[in-house]
Amino acid sequence: MNTNSYPIPRRNLNAATEQKESKFYPTPDNPKKRTGYAIVGLGKLTLGNILPAFASCKHSKVVALVSGDAQKASNVADQYGIDPKNIYNYQNFDSIKDNKEIDAVYIVLPNSMHHEFTLRAAAAGKHVLCEKPMANSVQESEEMIEACKKADRKLMIAYRVQYEPNNKMIMEWIRNKEYGTVKHIELFNGQNIGDPTQWRLKKSLAGGGALVDIGIYCLNTCRYLLGEEPDSVAASIHSTPGDDRFKEVEESIFFQLRFPSGVTANCASSYGAHQSRRYRVYSEEAWFGMDPAFPYKGLKTEFSQANDNVEWKSNPSIPEADQFALEIDHFTQCIQHDLKPFTPGEEGLQDHKIMQAIYRSATEQKVIKLDTFSESDVFRGPKPKGEE
Amino acid sequence: MNTNSYPIPRRNLNAATEQKESKFYPTPDNPKKRTGYAIVGLGKLTLGNILPAFASCKHSKVVALVSGDAQKASNVADQYGIDPKNIYNYQNFDSIKDNKEIDAVYIVLPNSMHHEFTLRAAAAGKHVLCEKPMANSVQESEEMIEACKKADRKLMIAYRVQYEPNNKMIMEWIRNKEYGTVKHIELFNGQNIGDPTQWRLKKSLAGGGALVDIGIYCLNTCRYLLGEEPDSVAASIHSTPGDDRFKEVEESIFFQLRFPSGVTANCASSYGAHQSRRYRVYSEEAWFGMDPAFPYKGLKTEFSQANDNVEWKSNPSIPEADQFALEIDHFTQCIQHDLKPFTPGEEGLQDHKIMQAIYRSATEQKVIKLDTFSESDVFRGPKPKGEE
Amino acid sequence: MNTNSYPIPRRNLNAATEQKESKFYPTPDNPKKRTGYAIVGLGKLTLGNILPAFASCKHSKVVALVSGDAQKASNVADQYGIDPKNIYNYQNFDSIKDNKEIDAVYIVLPNSMHHEFTLRAAAAGKHVLCEKPMANSVQESEEMIEACKKADRKLMIAYRVQYEPNNKMIMEWIRNKEYGTVKHIELFNGQNIGDPTQWRLKKSLAGGGALVDIGIYCLNTCRYLLGEEPDSVAASIHSTPGDDRFKEVEESIFFQLRFPSGVTANCASSYGAHQSRRYRVYSEEAWFGMDPAFPYKGLKTEFSQANDNVEWKSNPSIPEADQFALEIDHFTQCIQHDLKPFTPGEEGLQDHKIMQAIYRSATEQKVIKLDTFSESDVFRGPKPKGEE
Amino acid sequence: MNTNSYPIPRRNLNAATEQKESKFYPTPDNPKKRTGYAIVGLGKLTLGNILPAFASCKHSKVVALVSGDAQKASNVADQYGIDPKNIYNYQNFDSIKDNKEIDAVYIVLPNSMHHEFTLRAAAAGKHVLCEKPMANSVQESEEMIEACKKADRKLMIAYRVQYEPNNKMIMEWIRNKEYGTVKHIELFNGQNIGDPTQWRLKKSLAGGGALVDIGIYCLNTCRYLLGEEPDSVAASIHSTPGDDRFKEVEESIFFQLRFPSGVTANCASSYGAHQSRRYRVYSEEAWFGMDPAFPYKGLKTEFSQANDNVEWKSNPSIPEADQFALEIDHFTQCIQHDLKPFTPGEEGLQDHKIMQAIYRSATEQKVIKLDTFSESDVFRGPKPKGEE
Repeated sequence: MNTNSYPIPRRNLNAATEQKESKFYPTPDNPKKRTGYAIVGLGKLTLGNILPAFASCKHSKVVALVSGDAQKASNVADQYGIDPKNIYNYQNFDSIKDNKEIDAVYIVLPNSMHHEFTLRAAAAGKHVLCEKPMANSVQESEEMIEACKKADRKLMIAYRVQYEPNNKMIMEWIRNKEYGTVKHIELFNGQNIGDPTQWRLKKSLAGGGALVDIGIYCLNTCRYLLGEEPDSVAASIHSTPGDDRFKEVEESIFFQLRFPSGVTANCASSYGAHQSRRYRVYSEEAWFGMDPAFPYKGLKTEFSQANDNVEWKSNPSIPEADQFALEIDHFTQCIQHDLKPFTPGEEGLQDHKIMQAIYRSATEQKVIKLDTFSESDVFRGPKPKGEE
Repeated sequence: MNTNSYPIPRRNLNAATEQKESKFYPTPDNPKKRTGYAIVGLGKLTLGNILPAFASCKHSKVVALVSGDAQKASNVADQYGIDPKNIYNYQNFDSIKDNKEIDAVYIVLPNSMHHEFTLRAAAAGKHVLCEKPMANSVQESEEMIEACKKADRKLMIAYRVQYEPNNKMIMEWIRNKEYGTVKHIELFNGQNIGDPTQWRLKKSLAGGGALVDIGIYCLNTCRYLLGEEPDSVAASIHSTPGDDRFKEVEESIFFQLRFPSGVTANCASSYGAHQSRRYRVYSEEAWFGMDPAFPYKGLKTEFSQANDNVEWKSNPSIPEADQFALEIDHFTQCIQHDLKPFTPGEEGLQDHKIMQAIYRSATEQKVIKLDTFSESDVFRGPKPKGEE
Repeated sequence: MNTNSYPIPRRNLNAATEQKESKFYPTPDNPKKRTGYAIVGLGKLTLGNILPAFASCKHSKVVALVSGDAQKASNVADQYGIDPKNIYNYQNFDSIKDNKEIDAVYIVLPNSMHHEFTLRAAAAGKHVLCEKPMANSVQESEEMIEACKKADRKLMIAYRVQYEPNNKMIMEWIRNKEYGTVKHIELFNGQNIGDPTQWRLKKSLAGGGALVDIGIYCLNTCRYLLGEEPDSVAASIHSTPGDDRFKEVEESIFFQLRFPSGVTANCASSYGAHQSRRYRVYSEEAWFGMDPAFPYKGLKTEFSQANDNVEWKSNPSIPEADQFALEIDHFTQCIQHDLKPFTPGEEGLQDHKIMQAIYRSATEQKVIKLDTFSESDVFRGPKPKGEE
Repeated sequence: MNTNSYPIPRRNLNAATEQKESKFYPTPDNPKKRTGYAIVGLGKLTLGNILPAFASCKHSKVVALVSGDAQKASNVADQYGIDPKNIYNYQNFDSIKDNKEIDAVYIVLPNSMHHEFTLRAAAAGKHVLCEKPMANSVQESEEMIEACKKADRKLMIAYRVQYEPNNKMIMEWIRNKEYGTVKHIELFNGQNIGDPTQWRLKKSLAGGGALVDIGIYCLNTCRYLLGEEPDSVAASIHSTPGDDRFKEVEESIFFQLRFPSGVTANCASSYGAHQSRRYRVYSEEAWFGMDPAFPYKGLKTEFSQANDNVEWKSNPSIPEADQFALEIDHFTQCIQHDLKPFTPGEEGLQDHKIMQAIYRSATEQKVIKLDTFSESDVFRGPKPKGEE
């Protein structure tokens, strides 16, 4: 750590019985030292969340934009002070290999384009942070992992939930058996989708419906919480007949993930239900969870335990942090210190294998078996360190 | 209605913007006119809940006790002012047929005894209110229905949730599509059970584990909310190896109920998880539910809807009523006015058929089909009228 | 305790980590042994709450009614199985002295009648449980205490909050300094009152407005929580000009109670605000309180404390009990065992002295001093024992 | 608005029944066009909140630092990419007048230094955004207003609550009488302070105790919500004898603000109570408020209203925004478009006049009268426009 940016210790100005403040103040790196990203795709998520999130990053910065819309790219570059010469389009994207300012790309495109742009980015010598779902199939996912490996570039899937502190607190409660053994988890992620023309509702672009876009949060989060992999799945699907939005992709999916430890997770996801994004973990000595769990902001942790002769239902409140900034800075630290990302390509591949089985279970109306693994966190890199 | 007990209208002393009070005061019948019950079984539920609940009944009274423990029965009779000559045991139970004070029995025995005592009560010419689960098998249930039919006596299963006003409000929201069409329901009912010697953990007495005792709330409540019957189920079971409590009956059960309308309900129940009893309904324009939903007291309704540009999460609070008193008084009114109970024996039989399929699905690891019905509320009697 | 009604121990059927159940089942006395009450006044509170509450009493029963409306009294007697010969009116009330079934009276009349009927009941040799506020003035209160003393009869004011278990839990936290020393309490009790013709809005009948009817809960509860008496008050009053409801009595009152320990309680009460009944206690290491605190049902306790680096906001949930039943049974036990009630006439007199000062402070726009006392709980009898 | 940075319209991808998204994406100005600030003081608030907040500003940027600690200033400048030549100390501060990059200063110093640095900044030709409380006395406040007026520079006090969207929503409910007329407000702001050596506990540096530092939120927020000025105050003070922290400044202060409309606000603030920062507004047809209301993050709005025969208690959730960023950008827009700030120096001066009266009321133990005003929002500039 540079002597010019050592963390300034914070005096605790409150009594010991008050919520503890972080011991140190934020310690962003000097902008010149930060890892430079090209953002690929200027859609809703990029404009509304990812570009603003970089303002909270300590180790990362945006240096380039890639878009099919030159005018939009030019406006956005102006707003965020990005050098106009660092604007690329989908045709000249490969020339980023000659741009030393760009260390990595963050792919925020429709799902069907993840595969192509990961391969092109790796070929251009850039590290790849890719939005979830990582691709439209198991095979694409495997090729993306292979391509990055061959190019000796890092590949991380943007599972922001795994970098968010409330979810991390719950994961640790579970792993440490702080409230006994977990017996059951239920998860739901849904929203009532509009505009029938959006790419999320086109099979060729999205690869699937509610499952691949939002149901994946249920799947990935409960794998993260437990650290183990399901050994079988049972699922059903429903799309409302006559609803124009669901001609190509499924509206709702309901699936049970059965884990070797004996935990079954009941999951559901829907594009036709009013927005709710939550989970609850049922453990021997307490239940806890988040409601909401998966939105960008406003997360809330729930907890309930008996104390003497009274049940105490609580909300422990961890101050909100920008989930995208945490996720991006983790990837940057993996690049800077040559570490395997906590959620590498293999993590995304496993989700695709399970989603494939879920779809098959719903179609064939039977229980589908999955490969089993003896190790915990079998696809993940080392755990991200907290702030220090 | 007797002129001596007409309801006294209540003046509304508050502004129109305040929560409305009931228009009338409680109007209990004169004790002499109330229907007389013999309570069969003096266990935890009777002593802690059912006997106290009769104090809130308007049309029903306890006139007799049936117990295997003469000293306990004598004490309890003294506490509640029950005539000592109206104490029976399991041997002389059949002589209740000569007791004109007894109109009905309320069976609150271990599950395995429901069948025998229903048959004996019917033979003695008494109406039968029977705790859930109604029996230990489909066959027993069918025999109980048959016996009451033959004796021209009414049979009702004590599904108190179906008489509780918060659940009723939610049922009506769903049926009236007030917030659009329902897409999904998730339900959980669990508790961490103690004393391994209790009858609930003996297969011969209880007939099953978490499913038949508490999982039945998930099953029965979601059938009630939707008014339709599932056409298939998928389930899995887990009991912790080495846990002495679960040598004979299952610890946890996880099941999907798939309904013809397209709704799938994710259900789970456990004897090994910290107490939680809840459900949530995901509808097009709002989500709502209860947490907790199934305990005797302290129910809480949850609701969330978007209003302009803001999501409003709410708790509508209906003043608590004694669920047992509402359920008992419903049965009394069915007796007094010769009506089919809202939750007759056929309602309990259907739960047994589905539970049988759930167990089979878990054992055989496959999806099990069920009989389908075109009618709504196919097994229920006329809806209970509210208070007037 | 009679051998016929000993408490039946309850086996704990749940794991040790679950909320503890009461060790024993309810143990009502045989109706014949219970203390008999005459209810004086058949208004809203009696019909809606007090008569139903007796059904949950263990030591008390209603044996007589006193009303100015013979037909209503006859109807109600029929509903609750009260002997028609035990119906009295305001003229022949004094003849209750010849009725051996009547041990005590519960006065539930408009405030201005409390004084007269307490004096007449005492003269008839009956113990007196009187609704709050105990009278319309300090002088009336003193005469009521004197009359009961002379007749050697017990006098208790029906401050139900002091018998309610959630409030008791908070009182004990404060007294035991479980979360450090209390620094501040804020209390509010309000409702938007309707019908301008009701007696609560007539000065001659009610004696005052929001303060004496509902503001008294703020005053009495914070005296109870702290156990000490305020040494000065500062108050202001407001009634909306032109609002017909507030021609005779005040709409809103705002008052500071300043205690010798250094705590100041900010209190407010209004007949013109939407219903809210709550308080919060600010202590060194936690804050806690109830919202709502003062309604008949649906109380909710709130608590917040820091735990490690996180603030935990909690709701400890004590199962609801009937507040009126607890209060009535306490008075019965004082009669049966010759004890001073926890909230005797002197407790009500002190509230009247403080309310007198509050009105004076508002009128004269200055701070008013009050008598001070060195003892804790200076006006109260021994603490009620919990259930055993 | 520059054609290069026009707001990009956002397609609404969700159904009309979902929470509305902002119509437009964030539209930051190009960094080169933003107004440049010098931050004066590098204490806890600057390092922990204000510097990070600038990352979310759209129109403002940090260009200079002023500190007494050269090494700290150098580190921080490096972290935030600030040109080392733009670091000043308290001695050479006046030379900012020659730095064209600096348009305004944000004063984040101990209270006693606000006066001096406002005067010096104005003399240097810079606009002044000053933390609350604006000074240590009425006289200092008046001199600061005068100095900025003379120099033709804008002066704004950093009352962030007045720029926060949840508080704004509530203010509008009140002003529009959406739920009838307000009858009462209660406010509390407290925390259990530590380190007895911190400047907040030194009279000469802080100017007072809990009132001037945190009680000012109660005072200022309720003036903002109502738009009117109190005409009298009644207050009391308490500091725990022997508590080393409160030798110079008060621990707790309790005050009633009485408004001409008839509303009385009960306020309290304490340095000795566990952290809680909240208010509740009691209106005719609903009550509503925020809990917490005053922290930097995690605000929560509460609302309760009767709907039919049920009380609905709700939490409307407005997505969180950085309060400091909103406040800073408002001042920038006032500078850029020559507008009077919504919270100008006069707004801060009025708080000082009222705080002076509060202290006097507590000391003299009497009610103190204040100047009255017929206009609404008498000291404020035009309301900030929302985002467009």
